[in-house]
Amino acid sequence: MAGNTFGEIFRVTTWGESHGTAVGATIDGCPPGLELNEDIIQADLDRRRPGTGGAASPRKEPDKVQILSGIFEGRTTGTPISLIIFNKDAHSKSYDNLRDIFRPGHGDITYLEKYGIRDYRGGGRASARETAARVAAGAVARLLLSGHGIKVTAFTIALGGITTNQRDMAAAAKNRLFCPDEEAALRMEEKIKGVRAQGDTLGGVVEVRATGCPAGLGEPVFDKLDGALARALMSIGAVKGVEIGDGFAAAASTGSQNNDSLTPDGFASNHSGGILAGISNGDEIIVRAAVKPIPSIGREQQTINLKHEIVNIKIGGRHDISAIPRIIPVCEAMVCLTLADFFLRQQAVK
Amino acid sequence: MAGNTFGEIFRVTTWGESHGTAVGATIDGCPPGLELNEDIIQADLDRRRPGTGGAASPRKEPDKVQILSGIFEGRTTGTPISLIIFNKDAHSKSYDNLRDIFRPGHGDITYLEKYGIRDYRGGGRASARETAARVAAGAVARLLLSGHGIKVTAFTIALGGITTNQRDMAAAAKNRLFCPDEEAALRMEEKIKGVRAQGDTLGGVVEVRATGCPAGLGEPVFDKLDGALARALMSIGAVKGVEIGDGFAAAASTGSQNNDSLTPDGFASNHSGGILAGISNGDEIIVRAAVKPIPSIGREQQTINLKHEIVNIKIGGRHDISAIPRIIPVCEAMVCLTLADFFLRQQAVK
Amino acid sequence: MAGNTFGEIFRVTTWGESHGTAVGATIDGCPPGLELNEDIIQADLDRRRPGTGGAASPRKEPDKVQILSGIFEGRTTGTPISLIIFNKDAHSKSYDNLRDIFRPGHGDITYLEKYGIRDYRGGGRASARETAARVAAGAVARLLLSGHGIKVTAFTIALGGITTNQRDMAAAAKNRLFCPDEEAALRMEEKIKGVRAQGDTLGGVVEVRATGCPAGLGEPVFDKLDGALARALMSIGAVKGVEIGDGFAAAASTGSQNNDSLTPDGFASNHSGGILAGISNGDEIIVRAAVKPIPSIGREQQTINLKHEIVNIKIGGRHDISAIPRIIPVCEAMVCLTLADFFLRQQAVK
Amino acid sequence: MAGNTFGEIFRVTTWGESHGTAVGATIDGCPPGLELNEDIIQADLDRRRPGTGGAASPRKEPDKVQILSGIFEGRTTGTPISLIIFNKDAHSKSYDNLRDIFRPGHGDITYLEKYGIRDYRGGGRASARETAARVAAGAVARLLLSGHGIKVTAFTIALGGITTNQRDMAAAAKNRLFCPDEEAALRMEEKIKGVRAQGDTLGGVVEVRATGCPAGLGEPVFDKLDGALARALMSIGAVKGVEIGDGFAAAASTGSQNNDSLTPDGFASNHSGGILAGISNGDEIIVRAAVKPIPSIGREQQTINLKHEIVNIKIGGRHDISAIPRIIPVCEAMVCLTLADFFLRQQAVK
Repeated sequence: MAGNTFGEIFRVTTWGESHGTAVGATIDGCPPGLELNEDIIQADLDRRRPGTGGAASPRKEPDKVQILSGIFEGRTTGTPISLIIFNKDAHSKSYDNLRDIFRPGHGDITYLEKYGIRDYRGGGRASARETAARVAAGAVARLLLSGHGIKVTAFTIALGGITTNQRDMAAAAKNRLFCPDEEAALRMEEKIKGVRAQGDTLGGVVEVRATGCPAGLGEPVFDKLDGALARALMSIGAVKGVEIGDGFAAAASTGSQNNDSLTPDGFASNHSGGILAGISNGDEIIVRAAVKPIPSIGREQQTINLKHEIVNIKIGGRHDISAIPRIIPVCEAMVCLTLADFFLRQQAVK
Repeated sequence: MAGNTFGEIFRVTTWGESHGTAVGATIDGCPPGLELNEDIIQADLDRRRPGTGGAASPRKEPDKVQILSGIFEGRTTGTPISLIIFNKDAHSKSYDNLRDIFRPGHGDITYLEKYGIRDYRGGGRASARETAARVAAGAVARLLLSGHGIKVTAFTIALGGITTNQRDMAAAAKNRLFCPDEEAALRMEEKIKGVRAQGDTLGGVVEVRATGCPAGLGEPVFDKLDGALARALMSIGAVKGVEIGDGFAAAASTGSQNNDSLTPDGFASNHSGGILAGISNGDEIIVRAAVKPIPSIGREQQTINLKHEIVNIKIGGRHDISAIPRIIPVCEAMVCLTLADFFLRQQAVK
Repeated sequence: MAGNTFGEIFRVTTWGESHGTAVGATIDGCPPGLELNEDIIQADLDRRRPGTGGAASPRKEPDKVQILSGIFEGRTTGTPISLIIFNKDAHSKSYDNLRDIFRPGHGDITYLEKYGIRDYRGGGRASARETAARVAAGAVARLLLSGHGIKVTAFTIALGGITTNQRDMAAAAKNRLFCPDEEAALRMEEKIKGVRAQGDTLGGVVEVRATGCPAGLGEPVFDKLDGALARALMSIGAVKGVEIGDGFAAAASTGSQNNDSLTPDGFASNHSGGILAGISNGDEIIVRAAVKPIPSIGREQQTINLKHEIVNIKIGGRHDISAIPRIIPVCEAMVCLTLADFFLRQQAVK
Repeated sequence: MAGNTFGEIFRVTTWGESHGTAVGATIDGCPPGLELNEDIIQADLDRRRPGTGGAASPRKEPDKVQILSGIFEGRTTGTPISLIIFNKDAHSKSYDNLRDIFRPGHGDITYLEKYGIRDYRGGGRASARETAARVAAGAVARLLLSGHGIKVTAFTIALGGITTNQRDMAAAAKNRLFCPDEEAALRMEEKIKGVRAQGDTLGGVVEVRATGCPAGLGEPVFDKLDGALARALMSIGAVKGVEIGDGFAAAASTGSQNNDSLTPDGFASNHSGGILAGISNGDEIIVRAAVKPIPSIGREQQTINLKHEIVNIKIGGRHDISAIPRIIPVCEAMVCLTLADFFLRQQAVK
């Protein structure tokens, strides 16, 4: 109800603020018997870790996860799995100057409007720090899915207006931006450099694909799989748009072009993105998320303070130029959490 | 869990198939004391009614709603409101030829994969007929919202690749497509005519705006208002993409352009679409849905039958050329249901 | 949230008031493929029907159920099953004299306090009439359970202070009170006669047993099977106490007496009522419900009206002497609904 | 769904096993602005702490709670409150001899049947240790309630068959058993001594009263306040029966005796236990829980092992003679959690 829980059967509750003691997640409803340990989760968390160059800030967050419950002799027991990541790099002092100011593009003012109180230290609960807990929980979902042959991968298909023409996954694995088009990746890095010099930030588009997903997942009519994926990705702070398969391009298409013909060997095309009438059709699931530019920019901006007076701010510090690529494992985590939940939901009534 | 319920506090469950006895909705959690009658609901239902020309099919569905419970002496009592709409124009015979065939772009095959059984009569539960119940329930949500000064309006901003340059609401009220650009509306009608002659269908884009929405609605982190709206709109059969505010355009923007400056008089711009960090900011809420072309086309298509043999089909009958404009009140209904629920959720912890 | 929905996976929403148009239930989450028709449901409904003598009132409620959706060619489709029972015997006029009065022992005053509005016609939503919808939905749950070898039976073990010494199910089938002790049943009927003459009413105790229930149902720690059964039975209007196995007698026992020894052939005794640590242990499930006397009595009572003035009332009309035996199928229905839901919940994570 | 979450708006998820790293609770949906600190929670936890004599075992569990999130500058922020209690006194070695054995009266066999895996260390998740997290969360609920004038108190009204004749709250505060009848308390202590010498254990009855509760809480028809309280109390491991107001005694009463007359000054009696038609009536709420004897007894018992062979066990160690009095604050916590949730639910639709 208060929004910190995700999923119906495979159900995750996250907690924690950017500059509090820790962030964490509790998974309730994970099936028993999965071989789980901290290294498996840590591997996903490390992919979310800030780098030392490019679009990422130079901060270091070790983000060491601990499993506090739900595991016995190396296997899940079916009881709640509590995950915790202590916050070690919390410089709350550096936010004191933001105490009375509403940063443009941030949730400062809406949190205050909603709760009548605001944790101004680095965005509190609204910080991207919260996504560490999602990635940790998502790693457990990924483990469950991989046991059923389902694989989820996200990558960058646009950054700062530069788009990709290829889906070369081997190329994506080699560059820091997880961009499946080597040439585009180089241009994106150039763009980042230029924008960094201007104290500005960039948005982009992430595509997530799930292979091996069986037909039959998704619950008509309100819990369609595409609706659930849309909500899942849109629940990531920076995401402002989501599309499935051809998405917005389908709006300009015709029925004869957009329909995927069925053949004895499967679908002849995949305009639908692997989902028909809200239910997976066995084809590859394809979903894209539009990521807005990070609102914390180095350039001076005009805003207001708590007294509703005009003030100018310049947000210094260790901020990223783009939510990409750090948002990549977060997008994967949300898709994993969604698919794991719908997989179990389907199992319930089979 | 099985997907036919929407909302946490203002909670709607719909039921019914296109060619069954009736479709209906039960609203649980509607506050007591609202002045409600069948005419209020009928007004919204009538807007969903098929017309006699243009993009709509010539069928006639009277769609008379009855309130079966939850009202006493003209006011809601706080107990469940049961709404029913009997199906009168159900020609199930005309679907007999589709009994063994999977129509391209439809959920025929995914329903069979999911449930092991399929109601082949006009799509059964997957039919757009189901949305009549949503519109009926949405009218009650709209009544609740209007008591708090919130108004929700949807209109067509693209059809068949033709886009609008204006948001002239007076114009939208005058044409059948609810298109706020008179000149574009004319070109859209031309396009419809051409495509109808070819036995093909069209997609488009619907924009929904909510004015008067107070700041503070939305539940971080997984039940963000934008995520909930995305899920709500994507739960409509034909919708393949959703965006909030600048949406996908924000992905190609920069932070300095995309941030909405705060001024003592409110936000200087509205790139965010009225939602910051998942919480309404008091500005107009703007959300768009990409609507795919209707998959039932008059042209011959190749597909397979239950034995997985190749067959050709030509879907005749009384189908629309586009889900637009009939999808317009459905989009409004889903946004109304979402906002009504979040309004009450916010009230709970205030 | 507003309380008219029961179950997580096998989920039922009921609606309707005693003197409205109809009462009904929508089942969402029923597995596909069950052979269901109206006769199956009607059989359970008929057991709830008022008789012509004894503890029951002389009213006649035909209570004909109709299935409006969710069935195709005689089988459930996995989509919502909408059930409706029209109210035919609604004499709302006879309640006009109660319009301004709070009947002792009824929810008249609490409904008004809660909702600020009250449907005074026969108790509205608080009427036992509402349980017809539960019994209808419970019949579908029973069908699901019987396919897995689970059988639920309720019977009377106390009425008006007269208790049973036997569990002779053959005897229970022969008397109107479903009392498994022939001799006690006769004394209960005598008691009813005497109390009827005095214009008073009686309570009693119902025992429900479920056989064939597999081990492993129940969700620690908050959704224990016994907790769920307690809530289920206590949600029936007249029930004021619930116990599992030895229940309150266990409170006066010792560990050595109360523990059920395990043997290679199963448990040596069943003090636990078939539930250990909130999970079914494979033994017979035994639960009892304390039923209070019907508050509508023929004798004059003192109460207050809307103006908080003292008034005397004498509730005439066609009221039963005891909620027993009509509550028997309602108790069965609630246990069936609970077990069906937990059966599917267990299937989800197996 | 998997049972470790309680509440709809004020929603608590607990995690942790008796011999794992820690136990904890996450509260989602606590209103912002409450003045909360660890001392407030610790005070309730300390009441649950094992003593050094009487019915309690000589173990020492410091049970120091830490608040990990959700508080800023001494007040709740409306975001999730994560509470953790590290396990310090975990002697898992002493359970190695139980590794292959199913203890009578415990959940050993049902956990194995349910999950296919069992944490044999002290009962794992089924241990009473889990209730520490409930008490911690309940303290936050109690804080919320006390701000609205609602007070919840539990006490012992029966132990080992000895019952109380008084409700002298001053007396209850003075004895270790929270027994409101000084003379009965002395006899209970005598009984405990005798039973301890025999290596046996005792059950009892706890009564919980809530004063100051406004009329109007409770959600007909399935989420009645009494049903919710029944489920809440029955979710405590040892509880086998629950009753509201006169409870099982009402089953032997008549309508004229059991009805509470309304007067201009309130109800003339309180047979209903403060709840009518599932909704609080403004009177004192009275609920009782039947607590079974602790199944871990010092006497030799016959049982089976994993191979289903007969074995004898004698459970030594530091076990309590009765769940009373340590269950007292747990009962209070569950009632506080229930009332806090229903209080906010009512606020949502007011």
